[in-house]
This record gives sequence, C-alpha cells and structure tokens, in this order.
Amino acid sequence: MKTLISGGTVVSSTGRTVADVLVDGETIAAVLAPGSTALGVDLATSVDRVIDASGKYVVPGGIDAHTHMEMPFGGTFASDTFETGTTAAAWGGTTTIVDFVVQYPDQNPLEQYALWHDKAAGQCAIDYGFHQILSDVQDSSLKAMDELVAEGVTSFKLFMAYQGVFLSDDGQILRAMQKASDNGAMIMMHAENGSVIDVLVRQALEAGNTSPYHHGLTRPWQAEAEATSRAIMLADLTGAPLYVVHVSAKQAVEQIAIARDKGQNVFGETCPQYLYLSLEEQLAAHSERWGAFEGAKWVCSTPLRSRAEGHQDHMWQALRTNDVQLVSTDHCPFCMKDQKELGLDNFAKIPNGIGSVEHRMDLMYQGVVSGQISLERWVEITSTTPARMFGMWGRKGVIAPGADADVVVYDPAGHTSIGVGKTHHMNMDYSAWEGFEVDGHVDLVMSRGTVLVSDGAFHGRPGHGQYVRRGLSQYLL
Amino acid sequence: MKTLISGGTVVSSTGRTVADVLVDGETIAAVLAPGSTALGVDLATSVDRVIDASGKYVVPGGIDAHTHMEMPFGGTFASDTFETGTTAAAWGGTTTIVDFVVQYPDQNPLEQYALWHDKAAGQCAIDYGFHQILSDVQDSSLKAMDELVAEGVTSFKLFMAYQGVFLSDDGQILRAMQKASDNGAMIMMHAENGSVIDVLVRQALEAGNTSPYHHGLTRPWQAEAEATSRAIMLADLTGAPLYVVHVSAKQAVEQIAIARDKGQNVFGETCPQYLYLSLEEQLAAHSERWGAFEGAKWVCSTPLRSRAEGHQDHMWQALRTNDVQLVSTDHCPFCMKDQKELGLDNFAKIPNGIGSVEHRMDLMYQGVVSGQISLERWVEITSTTPARMFGMWGRKGVIAPGADADVVVYDPAGHTSIGVGKTHHMNMDYSAWEGFEVDGHVDLVMSRGTVLVSDGAFHGRPGHGQYVRRGLSQYLL
Amino acid sequence: MKTLISGGTVVSSTGRTVADVLVDGETIAAVLAPGSTALGVDLATSVDRVIDASGKYVVPGGIDAHTHMEMPFGGTFASDTFETGTTAAAWGGTTTIVDFVVQYPDQNPLEQYALWHDKAAGQCAIDYGFHQILSDVQDSSLKAMDELVAEGVTSFKLFMAYQGVFLSDDGQILRAMQKASDNGAMIMMHAENGSVIDVLVRQALEAGNTSPYHHGLTRPWQAEAEATSRAIMLADLTGAPLYVVHVSAKQAVEQIAIARDKGQNVFGETCPQYLYLSLEEQLAAHSERWGAFEGAKWVCSTPLRSRAEGHQDHMWQALRTNDVQLVSTDHCPFCMKDQKELGLDNFAKIPNGIGSVEHRMDLMYQGVVSGQISLERWVEITSTTPARMFGMWGRKGVIAPGADADVVVYDPAGHTSIGVGKTHHMNMDYSAWEGFEVDGHVDLVMSRGTVLVSDGAFHGRPGHGQYVRRGLSQYLL
Amino acid sequence: MKTLISGGTVVSSTGRTVADVLVDGETIAAVLAPGSTALGVDLATSVDRVIDASGKYVVPGGIDAHTHMEMPFGGTFASDTFETGTTAAAWGGTTTIVDFVVQYPDQNPLEQYALWHDKAAGQCAIDYGFHQILSDVQDSSLKAMDELVAEGVTSFKLFMAYQGVFLSDDGQILRAMQKASDNGAMIMMHAENGSVIDVLVRQALEAGNTSPYHHGLTRPWQAEAEATSRAIMLADLTGAPLYVVHVSAKQAVEQIAIARDKGQNVFGETCPQYLYLSLEEQLAAHSERWGAFEGAKWVCSTPLRSRAEGHQDHMWQALRTNDVQLVSTDHCPFCMKDQKELGLDNFAKIPNGIGSVEHRMDLMYQGVVSGQISLERWVEITSTTPARMFGMWGRKGVIAPGADADVVVYDPAGHTSIGVGKTHHMNMDYSAWEGFEVDGHVDLVMSRGTVLVSDGAFHGRPGHGQYVRRGLSQYLL
Repeated sequence: MKTLISGGTVVSSTGRTVADVLVDGETIAAVLAPGSTALGVDLATSVDRVIDASGKYVVPGGIDAHTHMEMPFGGTFASDTFETGTTAAAWGGTTTIVDFVVQYPDQNPLEQYALWHDKAAGQCAIDYGFHQILSDVQDSSLKAMDELVAEGVTSFKLFMAYQGVFLSDDGQILRAMQKASDNGAMIMMHAENGSVIDVLVRQALEAGNTSPYHHGLTRPWQAEAEATSRAIMLADLTGAPLYVVHVSAKQAVEQIAIARDKGQNVFGETCPQYLYLSLEEQLAAHSERWGAFEGAKWVCSTPLRSRAEGHQDHMWQALRTNDVQLVSTDHCPFCMKDQKELGLDNFAKIPNGIGSVEHRMDLMYQGVVSGQISLERWVEITSTTPARMFGMWGRKGVIAPGADADVVVYDPAGHTSIGVGKTHHMNMDYSAWEGFEVDGHVDLVMSRGTVLVSDGAFHGRPGHGQYVRRGLSQYLL
Repeated sequence: MKTLISGGTVVSSTGRTVADVLVDGETIAAVLAPGSTALGVDLATSVDRVIDASGKYVVPGGIDAHTHMEMPFGGTFASDTFETGTTAAAWGGTTTIVDFVVQYPDQNPLEQYALWHDKAAGQCAIDYGFHQILSDVQDSSLKAMDELVAEGVTSFKLFMAYQGVFLSDDGQILRAMQKASDNGAMIMMHAENGSVIDVLVRQALEAGNTSPYHHGLTRPWQAEAEATSRAIMLADLTGAPLYVVHVSAKQAVEQIAIARDKGQNVFGETCPQYLYLSLEEQLAAHSERWGAFEGAKWVCSTPLRSRAEGHQDHMWQALRTNDVQLVSTDHCPFCMKDQKELGLDNFAKIPNGIGSVEHRMDLMYQGVVSGQISLERWVEITSTTPARMFGMWGRKGVIAPGADADVVVYDPAGHTSIGVGKTHHMNMDYSAWEGFEVDGHVDLVMSRGTVLVSDGAFHGRPGHGQYVRRGLSQYLL
Repeated sequence: MKTLISGGTVVSSTGRTVADVLVDGETIAAVLAPGSTALGVDLATSVDRVIDASGKYVVPGGIDAHTHMEMPFGGTFASDTFETGTTAAAWGGTTTIVDFVVQYPDQNPLEQYALWHDKAAGQCAIDYGFHQILSDVQDSSLKAMDELVAEGVTSFKLFMAYQGVFLSDDGQILRAMQKASDNGAMIMMHAENGSVIDVLVRQALEAGNTSPYHHGLTRPWQAEAEATSRAIMLADLTGAPLYVVHVSAKQAVEQIAIARDKGQNVFGETCPQYLYLSLEEQLAAHSERWGAFEGAKWVCSTPLRSRAEGHQDHMWQALRTNDVQLVSTDHCPFCMKDQKELGLDNFAKIPNGIGSVEHRMDLMYQGVVSGQISLERWVEITSTTPARMFGMWGRKGVIAPGADADVVVYDPAGHTSIGVGKTHHMNMDYSAWEGFEVDGHVDLVMSRGTVLVSDGAFHGRPGHGQYVRRGLSQYLL
Repeated sequence: MKTLISGGTVVSSTGRTVADVLVDGETIAAVLAPGSTALGVDLATSVDRVIDASGKYVVPGGIDAHTHMEMPFGGTFASDTFETGTTAAAWGGTTTIVDFVVQYPDQNPLEQYALWHDKAAGQCAIDYGFHQILSDVQDSSLKAMDELVAEGVTSFKLFMAYQGVFLSDDGQILRAMQKASDNGAMIMMHAENGSVIDVLVRQALEAGNTSPYHHGLTRPWQAEAEATSRAIMLADLTGAPLYVVHVSAKQAVEQIAIARDKGQNVFGETCPQYLYLSLEEQLAAHSERWGAFEGAKWVCSTPLRSRAEGHQDHMWQALRTNDVQLVSTDHCPFCMKDQKELGLDNFAKIPNGIGSVEHRMDLMYQGVVSGQISLERWVEITSTTPARMFGMWGRKGVIAPGADADVVVYDPAGHTSIGVGKTHHMNMDYSAWEGFEVDGHVDLVMSRGTVLVSDGAFHGRPGHGQYVRRGLSQYLL
C-alpha cells in the first residue's frame, strides 16, 4: 500500500517546505519536491492513493507525553479507557501517547508494568509508550529501573506530594536519581510540597472551606516553586536529567530557567489548562445544576493559577523562550457524575484531573493564530520535542524517510468548535474546554500508514496501536 | 544531471536518519529511505552519479554568516579576495558566506552595495549574501535600509566603537533600530564601548605598553558587557531584533541570556577563537622571528579573553544552552608581513582580524568529539540557525526537497591537521590555528549540485557562486 | 549658653532611647539618662534653657544632600536663593544642605567653586556643603578634583545627558572615575542616556506632542536603566565609588541592587517625588488657569514614572532593603509664572525641577506612619546615611557628644498640612505637594545650638549657616 | 559605684567618636564630650574609678547569639558548662550569650525551659538569654510558643535535618511559622536537607569512607542551599521572619540575598569557622597522635566548605553587603578525648561542634585589620545587630544612657595569640583556632558595671550573669 500526500506544506520545528510525502506501508519512504521528474516516474499515478494536502499543513503526528488512561485513583478510575482515550486522541491529531504505569507502595514495579501492558494491548487506536510511576522508592524499585529501561521504559515519575500514596521522600528521590544518572533514564517529577499542602488542606477544611476553589488556594505557587527548586538541587547533586511535569506557576518556571541557564539538564512541561484557564475563572464558575461545585470540573494538580498574578502570560512567554519545552495534557478525565461528585462536601475528595487529550493540537494551534508562538514552534512543542525528550525521534516526531508514517494534515482555513455534542469523543460527561473556538482543523490523521480520521469520520480500530519501545532521551545537553 | 548521495547518516538540528539524498540539477529532489522499492525504480542505476556516504555524515553545507573579504581597513585590505576566501571556505565545508558591504561616513550605502556586487560578481566559488555596515547613521541611511531589504540585504551592522570610522552614537542607533522595527530587518551590533577603549588605548601607549597583548588589556570585558547591555536596552525601546556579533565575554553572554529569558529577540554569535584561544596564550606567544609581536596573529576585536576568568568555558556552555545561537568566523585575514607589521611599535595599528573561514566546520566538529556539543547541535550552530537567522532557510541550511543542493559529506573516521603547508588555502602567511588537530574530515563538498571538493581535490571555480537574496529572519520569537 | 533637651525619645538609625541631650554652645556636650543623679548636679536647674521633649522624638537634623539654590539653567535661575531655600529647609527640619557648584564647559571649576562660596556666604540659615558639577571633563577638571577634595568638596557630579551643556562622554567619565579612585572622592551620576532622549524629544515635538506629559514619555525608564548600568560598569572598571542621583525607575534600582550584591560601592538616592507622585497623575493634571500645562509643575528629570508599571512601590521596597540608601530632594524650584511658562508650547523648554526642601522630613515621616519604613530607618535615610555618605558623620547626622547641636524635636502627635498659604516658605508660586497631609510635625529645629524654629515661629537669620568642609565618604564597603 | 571610661574612641555601627562614658551602678548614665565643662563638675575626680581608654576602642560588649553550653547530644554533653563557657566568653569580650533550650521529641518545651533556667542560674559569668529548640512540632509546641514569648524567649529554632532527633517536617515547620507570624517571634532554622544527608552518610560508610573529611563530603552545599530555599519559601507563605543559622555555603547566601532583595524578612548568621577554615584544610590535617582523625576537631554542621569553590571569600563579601547580618559562634565544644573519639571509626558518630565563644571578637577584629570589614561593621555584626535581631537593643548592643554597662575596651595596638596554653579558657583539650594571631587585644571587659577582665586577670564570678528577658526582634523591615 503506497500513499502520496501531495502538495502540502511540510512543517518541521525549523521551517516549512512544500513537498510530497510518499508513504509505503507503515513508514515514510520519501519526501520529494512536488512534481519532480527526477525519479523518472509519475508517483501520483503509480501509488495506491493520493491525498491532496494543497494549502494545508503536513505535520508529524502529535505526541502527548502525559496521559493517565483508566488510572486508578481514590477509589475510582480515570474515565477514559485505553480504547476511548486513544480514539479521542486520534480525532485530535495525536498519534502517540505516553501513559503512566502506576505502582503504589507494596506493589511490584515490574508486575505493574506487565499489568499495564495487559490493559493496553489490543485496545489502543494509536501507538503508546509507558513511563513508570515509582512510589516510595525501595531497593527493589532501583533494580527494576534497569530492567524497565531495557523494556523501553526510560522515564520514571516520582512524587513530592501525596503522602502515603505516591510520595517519595528526598532521600528516596536522591537514590532514584543516582540510578537514573547511571543508566541514563529521565526523572519526571510531580513537584509540589505535599507536606505543606496537607496542612493547608486540613486547615481549610477545619475552617469550613470545602468548595473546589479552595483546592487551588491550598496548593499555593510557593509549594510548587519550592518543590521545583528542591528537585533541581537534587538532580544537580546526582547528575540525573530532570523533567518537571505540569508546571503551572511562573516562579517554578523561573527556577527551571535559572538551572537551564547554568547548563543543567532540567526540563519543564506545561499543559493547555495552565496557558488558558485560571483560578479566578474557577472561582466564578457556577451552574444551575452544580452551583459553585461547577468549579470541580477544573480541579487538577498542580492547580489552575491566578491570572492576576500573571502565571498564564509568563507560561506563554516561557513556551517561546524554551524555558518550557513542550506541552502535554496530563489527560486524567473524570465525570462530574459519581466521580467529581465524590468531593461535593470536601474539595479534597474530588478526583484530580482534566481531560484534554483530544484538543491539545487544536488548542496549541490557536496559540499560532493569536501570535503567541510560531507555526514551527507549534510542531516543536507538540511533536518534535516530545519525541526527542522521550527517545522516540526518528521513528516519531518527524516527517522523514524511515519514520513511522504518523502524519496529520491540518487545515488553517478550517474551524473547530470544542464542546460536548460538538467535538467530544472523550469519555466524560462534560468538557473542560466547552465553548473554545479554534481557527484551524485536523483534517486527516494517519498512524503508521493507516488513515484513522478523514472527512470527519473515524476509520481506526482498537488494537491498531502498538507499544513503542523507547530509547534514552535525545534532548540532553 | 542527477546525483544520488547514498547510505549516509543525514544529520539535522533535531536528529539523524540514514537516508539517500537525490540531487537533480542544482536542488535536492528527494530524501529517501535507502533501498526503498516504493518508487518502483532503482535510483542507484538511473542517476548520473552515485556518491557513497556510508558511515559518514551528510549535513547541510556550512553557512558562515560573518566574513570580510577584501575589506578595506586602516589603509590596507583583508588579504583574502572573494575568490581566495570563498575557495578556502569551500575546502572547509562552507558553501555560503554572508559578507559585509562597508559604508564609511560620507559614502552612500546604496553605491557601496553596488560596489560590493561588482567586487564579488564572477569571483566566488560558493554562494554569498550581504549584510550592510552603516556608519554614522543619517536620514539617507534610514531610507537606504528599506531599499536594501528589497534587495535581499535584511541585516544591518552598527558599531558602538571606532569613533570617526564606524561608530554611530546611541541616538543614531536608536533611529536605525526604529527603522528595523518597521521593516523587519535585523540589527547587528559590534558591542564595545569605543569611548572607553579609546581612553585606555591612549593611556597604554602613553605608558609605553605597545605590544599586542595590550590590545586585549585595553578592551576589557566591561567595555563589551556594557555595550551589550546598552544595545539590548535600545532594542527593547524600539522593538527591533538584535544580533550581537562576535561575543567573547561571559558577562556579555549573561546580558543576552537575561534579555532572552524575558522573551526579547536578542541573539548572540560567537567565533571559534573565543571558544579555543585565550589572552594568556597571546601573552605567552613568542617566536624567533617576531618575539612578543608573535601575539599580533591573534589581534582581533572583540579581543581574546582571559582563560583564568572562565570566558571560554562559559561560551561553550552558552552554545549548549542556546544563549549563544550560532558560530561564525568574523573572517578578516591579514598577513603578518606588511600588514600586521604595521603595528610593530604600536598595537593600535595592527589590523584587527583572524582568518578562520576554512576551519570553522572542523573546529566546531572537534567540539562534538570532545563532548562539548551534540552532533545535532553542530549542524544547528553551523548551518540551520545561520540560515534561519538570516532569512535563507528552505533554500539553505537544510537537507530537504527543493533546497539548494549544498551538501557536505563529513567523515567521522577521518582526520584533519590544520596549519600552513597542511590544510591552508586562505591567503595568509600564517595560520591562527597552526597545530590544531581535528578528529574528522570534510570529505566532499557540493554547492548547488556541483561537487567543489572531493578526494582531496578542488573542482570548483570562481563565478560558480551566486548572490543570495535573503528574506527577513525566520528565527524571531 | 547651655540647653537641655529633656525627656525626649532620642532616635538613631539603630534604635530609640529616652535621654536628655545637653547642648553647650554649638555642640552636644552629653547624652544622659533622664534624671540621673550620677553627675551630682541638677542639670535642669543649672542650664540656661530647658526644652521639654517629652513624648516627642529627638532626632539629628535633616541633611538634604541634593539641592540647587539659585541654579542657572536654561536662561533662568532656580527661584530659591540660598537665603529663601535654606530658610524653608529649616522650617522643615533640615539643618544641612549639600548644594551643587555648577561648572559649565569653558568655565573653570575652581573659579566656579569660589563663585558659589560668594553666593552662599552670609546668606544661609543653615549649614551647607558643596558638591561640584563637572561638565565636559578635561585635564584641568581632573587636576581641580584634587584641589577641591582638599577644600572639602569630596563628591563630583557628572552627567550622561544634556549634550553641549553638562554631558561628559564615557571616556571623560572614565577619566574622572580614575581620578576619584585615586583620591577617594565619590562620583555622583545623572544617569540618563541623553543621546536617546534627544532623539525621542525631537520626534515628539515633530509629531506635535508638546504638552508636559511628553516630558516623561520621552525619558523612558530604559534610558535611565541603561545609563545606570553603564555608569556601574565604568565604576567597576576604575574602582571608583558611584552614587546615582534621583533614581526613579525600578529597573535602575535593579541594576544597583545587582552591583551591590556583588560588593561594589554603588549607591542610589531617590526623592520624595519618585515615592509619591506618578506619570499618570501628571497626565491627569488640569487646572482652569493652566489646562494640561498644569502638569508642568512636576516636570523634573529623571521624570515621574508610571504607577501602573510599579516604580513607586518598588522604590519604597528598595528603601526598606537598602538598595536605595537615602532620600534627598533634588530641590530645584521654578515658578509657574515666567519660568515653567517658558515651555508653554514646548515641554522641552520647561525648566526641570521640583521644590521639596521644606517637606522632605515630613513626607518621609509619613512613610513611617503608613508602615512603609521604620522610625529608625526614617532617621537613617534622612540624616545618618547622608552624613556618612558625604563625609560629615560625627559632626552631623548623629546625636552624640562632640557633634554639632543640629537637633530636631519631632512631634508624632502633631499634624502638618502642606500647601501654599499653609506651610510653604519656598520661593515658588505653587507647591508640588499641595494637599498632602502629614501625621506629624516639626516642633523645634536647632542648628549648632541655636533654635531656628520653635512654637511655629522662625528665629533664624541669613548668615547663621556655615560652610561644611567634608571628608571622604564614611559609607564605603 | 561610678566609673568613668575616659578618652576612648567610642565605636558604634555608624561611626566613631572620642567620648567619655559614665557608668553608674549597672548602667550607663551618660556619654560625654571629653573634658567638657558643660556639666559644671569634674567627673574625673568625682567618680569612684577612672578607666583610661585613650588610644583604644570603647565598644558595646559582644553578643554571641548562638551557643550550646552543656548541650546533651549523642550520649555526651558539650564540654563547656554555663560557668566555664561564660567565663571564657568574658575573657574574649563577649558579655551576653543567647543559649539554646533543647527540647527533644516527647519532652515538654516549658519543662525544658525551666530546666535550662535551673542549669544556668547562679552559674553564669555574663548575662544570658534563651532561644528555644522545638523538635517535632506538635499542637502543644505551638501553644508553648506564646507562653515562651511572654517569658522573653522570642526565637524558636527548628531543624530540617536529624531525623528522629530534631527534625520537623515541612508541615510542622509551616505550622510553627504560622504561629510565629501571629505572635511576632523569630523562626531560626538549621537548614540542611537531612533526608539527603542521611542517604549520603549511609552510602559513604558502606563504601568504607569513615574519616572526618567525609563528614563534609556527605553534607554538600546543595543540601544546605536547597533547605535554605525551602525555608525561605515556607516563610514567604506564612509571613514569619526567618533567621538561618550557621550559613556556610555561598549558594545558601545567594538564596538569602534574593529573598532580601524582594523585601522579605530573611536573615543569615555565619560563624568564624566559615570565614576562616576550609574543607581542604580539614582533609590535610594530620597529627602524630590522631593521624587523619585530627580532622575531627573541625567536624561541625553545617560543615566546613571547600576553599576552591570560593565559599569563604563569598562569605566575607556577604558580611560586607549585609546579605549576612551577624556573626555568632555556634559554640558547641567537645574534647577530642572520650568525645570526638566516639567517631574514631565512623565520622557520623563524632559529636558535631567547634568551640569559639572566647575568640569571636578577636577573630572578627582581625577582619578589620585585613581590610575585609570596617571597624564600624565589626561592632555591628558582633553586638549591635545581634541585639536588634533578638530584641535586646537599648539594654544591650549600644553605648548609650540607660543601657546596661556592658563595655569592652579594645586595644588596636595589642596582640592576641590563640591556642591552648596561650589564651584558652574554654573547657576543651584542643583549640580549633590553634596558632591564629590577632593584631588587637581585649583589654578590659565590663558587664553591667562590673569589671570582669582587666590587666590580664579575671575578676568575675559565677552568678554575676543574669537572665535577659528579650523582646521581639527590632530588626524587621
């Protein structure tokens, strides 16, 4: 099966070129000057299928490096299965996710890794890789790290919050970082000072402050900036590369920028919610059905930040200056009904998470339209850098011969209205992005040579997606 | 004429891929998976020529964005003509230079631009573009800026030093920056406080300190850091993009880094001499013939900096952190005989300049070998970013369909010994890099489809090189 | 003549103590525990006069280190003579001023110094010292610096603005700083980039923007921050101590703070107008008589800054953190009638200056009331540090035996309403501080043992004030 | 009993004045111009005693704000009792100490406070106050804080290291800071990341690295800088003033400087060992008796730092710039015999501490001689600021009427040789300062009007010293 994607503007992280892309089977066979006679063949007639991309952007499929499908948390599960979540991702132009294997204390990391393979196998519409969460790092965890790297799990997420659930203390983090420094793995960090947050939450509840807004108030930026600073210092001690997940506070960005200026391998990921949404809007949210509990829709950790304090503007700037290197979603969807509702009387019981895996490419493209980032930077933060950061570049993240034919045709003349009943394929009873309008449209999505989405229809299937065995980061200094 | 460069590792600024490159006439027709049957043709037998690049790197031709061929200065001329200089460049894997049109006060910028075309036309072995030097900015200079942008001269160099020769005062700089902010041009800045330097030079000479070493002592890092800070502030006032040439002091880099962290379009260029050479070595230089005047070989401005103060280490770090974005040579060669000798009794009369256009690609590759930068970063700082910075990307700076076939095959198993009588094609009676050994070799150099260098022989000719009409910078935030 | 100031709270820069102060002739003879029997004498009955300061603060007389009495500028003269200006100062609790000898280009610094002595002698109600302005620094200026230091003029003001009037270029500044580094004098700097400002002013006028508000717009903070950075770098090159006058921009403060953190002898002075007034209020100012020209009342250089940009808040903070060390007035009064009016059609012709010498102590005390600074810090920034900074401590700036009996009794229970017809003894037809209310009052002012102000009456006379021969700065690291 | 200290140069933190000091009973009655006839009495003949201080400095008695007399630690006790320690302090010109009440987990803070009173009462040669150590902060600890403030214990020390002994977790620290923010107390912090250090120590011991040098290696500067940053962020969250004890790493100073530039009430204390001694010297230390264990003499926490990394130079600079505000000793003496020896085979068992209470004034005066600090700064960092920082100013820390007559006459023409058998009154079998020579001498020490030391003899007695009930800090912004 040969496909020619013809006449589009191929956009990379460094520039754009009008070119034809020849797909042969699952991979890209060639990138060619349009209408070149150099080959001595007329490709347009010799291939099985021609996709006309004239006037449109041809970009490498999106890579969402931070998702939590079916994640068990607080007695419930994230509402998207690997099937529904990856299908929604495909709709939105994302052709690879990296999901998190969860290991709770007393669980065996390798068994959990095997379990996650079982959950994902045969279910995914797009390719998937795994990061491994390590809770309460022990000797056995350190040993498992080497084995997991060999399996293509080259990144390990630790937590500085969630005492008794995920938290590792600083000594445990140090040891995991020492191991990562040895075997080349990336340490991912949930950087919030959990000890401080636990006190503030308890005090808020004791004072009768139970509404969703207090979720944000009890996770102040100082708790994030402090933990970010601490993680950076520990990484400096060990030499391990550090990737701070879901950065939301400008002061945390500043810590990262300082370390990067010194040449340390420290990276920051942000998410669409920290670019577009704010604590003030969460406070203002009211609905007939939910009243002030409407704000629960946007309860996530790190929390939404105050717009008056300037976090969102600073985050866009950091995206431009590369002090933040990429945008993932931290997709962790929960329904209002039965799930978010668990915290009706107590914000601390609201499952944390926002669902965005379907809309990341569109939401970030709107940043191009509004002049916040360049078209090339859009490709870089949504695909090129995620691929490089997590050891997939060459196979993913680039339109080049030999690469997987993961391609999105994006129409700058199209339009996308986000919301339940409009575009919404995630398994959630609400959208965190209801009412957002995007001046562009995902026209066609190809994964390893197979068209998953075209003409507004989904042609994919569970099981098309394959596990991606990742190498070490290709983004280190 | 069709050429297939087969089996090499194509390296871009983001990664490396084994691929074939098909050249048709002057441009790249396709980049293909090696041995792919997808096209239905056997390219290896159907092309006119096959270049076997197995085991070697295939990279976009080097772009040296800062050269001064035949530059008139202090009563003499830089010793390389456009012919000898571009030939030497080709030997070293550089396929494009951007040279400076010189306008002295009382000269007409447009006439000078025409004059430079006359000097270069028919002489160049490789393609060339022009920046325009503006001395003593006047109303007429501002008007000329618009016309020159239309001619493809989209960058203008101003000087904060050389009173009466090149210097523009801050008000003049402000006005040129206002114009650049309007028409999108890049302001390039020689950032040294000339007023301060003039006093220090006079005082040194009065004290009888006349040897070449005092060139460096009378141009202290404070003079560079100060002027860099000033240029940044003026650029901030006007919104103009700013490119600081030949950055040598770590404190100047710090000023640039601060501005960049704030999201300002400020860029820094460094040169091999600021990475490898030092003031201490200039002080120590003695030869039988020249005695302490041996140090004149490395008299350039900005000057070599003290290794004890850490400038060189900091500069390598800044190359990694992208606080410095690219490496040019500031190629401005003068012979010791009759030229550097002008300053035998007075360092201030030594023509300023070092010749490096031939060795930039090799010298920077050695940074890959020594672990200072990655292979991808080598391509980025020597070709990709120069092309983007100065509006040539797409045609230059990338291995992609439609691009000019400017290609270097670089052999990581080869070796290069630099020095007069070894590799040295620049028109100089000495080499600033005598004795440098490089663990790599420029095997083959192609310019717009024509092989200029292969098998240790030069196949190019004066006049092959064409003028490159540049667009606006493609590197702005 | 012996006076006992009894029962007051003596406030120093480090703390407060209830104590009696015994004045004998012109100096302080002793500071004593109230009612102590240790001396074996009953002072209250043995002295000539007892001043009851119970419940009040006894502080060292205010020192205003920056005034311009009778200053010739732009064809007119500052409207306060040494007599009127020092009388107003005394009313407000200031017992020493340091005024500026003006040397224009082509004038001899020493002759000007003599001239200023002539102007002040026999006129002043309080003591006075001199700084020397050096315009267009020449060899003769450098020589004069040594002679002036011997005369007690240990501080020299240079200008980075006012081309053709005051401006010295960077090389000239460098040489003056080299001299200061040798003889220990302080370099005071008017830090604004005049070259840039001249262009912006010309452009504004060409565009028809002639109202007072445009004075501020054409002197943007970048012009101040840049020049401050430049002055600091030059001082670093030479080792001279640097005192930046009338700092108004927060970015200039930041430059000073960075240098100070590195241990450089760099100091910053601010003025009440940069703490209390703003560009927005200048824009809003309208009166029946003057219309928008009302804003001329606050035309000074550096200009008022935008409150929206946060300069005023940052300046108060810098006063607390000691990044700004003291508060002077830059007292340079002009009447609206016939003087400010010169710029009715052209803001550039408005004489620059605000009159505040009478109100500095009160205005800064209001900062204590509002919680911006502590009571001790009030004494420090208005008296202790000015004395130390300019080589007068011991004689001035402290309540201690042997010191001049310059004492202010300040009543925290009093009240002061500022405005023409209320408290206003400066020779101006308006007050820049009209309507300001202060929750405190200058009750009694003593200068060298003589009561100048008490019971709301003035008892001083022209000629009481004597010249203060100053030593080198006592504030250097 | 009246004493006149006549003719000396009274030095304060802001300047120096030749003056007589009249002491009446326990307090200062007056400070007078020498030989003044203003009083109408001849004091020299009317007082009981005249101390001639001509040619000498008269300074407020030293205040050592950080001592640990008889401190129980690791199964032994600090070797100085309140009697021996305060006697040694007096010898060295220190007239007040603030010692630490120790509360271990499960102990009641108030009971411990009472116990410490019992230990000190009747034993001390000089006055003493208490800070309170709070381990493992609980509700009861918070309640005790209010009661202790009422008792004059207005500062509370917490630990971020020593798990299971002293450590409070971040949530506990937060709560103590909230309380301090309410009642105005100062939070003192031992800022080292104990969790990280515990891992490094275990790893070092497992690797067989047991010698004293490894004490420093396993407490890297990152552990100190990180904890300092964390403490600052927690203080910012709560508004509590923060005083970081025994700062030794330049990176920790940088964290403090950043916070202070922002106007936060954050303070840093350093100790003579961090100014003079280094890790390299500890490594080099060998003796016939102890071999490499000789290094145990300087095992303290925070540890000595590397001179090659520049910590000592930076610390002196920070003393000048007021980024570090004062110098205490952290006096915590242990003998080599039987005490330090506990760690012969395991550096982790060496009791941590250095004894310096006797030498602080001399060691810091040597900084004046060597040009590191001014004479005034010497008084400020050894007496004025400690008094202000910890709520004793007015009674202590100043030569002023009403203050306790705690006075030191210091002879700049004298000399002091430090070492066992020379000057050494501390109860230790070695001196950490053996061989240090000081170009000055403590001639006379007076405490509350009683001469403790004069003519090289000790005239004091246990029990002279009284408890100082302190107020809140007088040093806050």
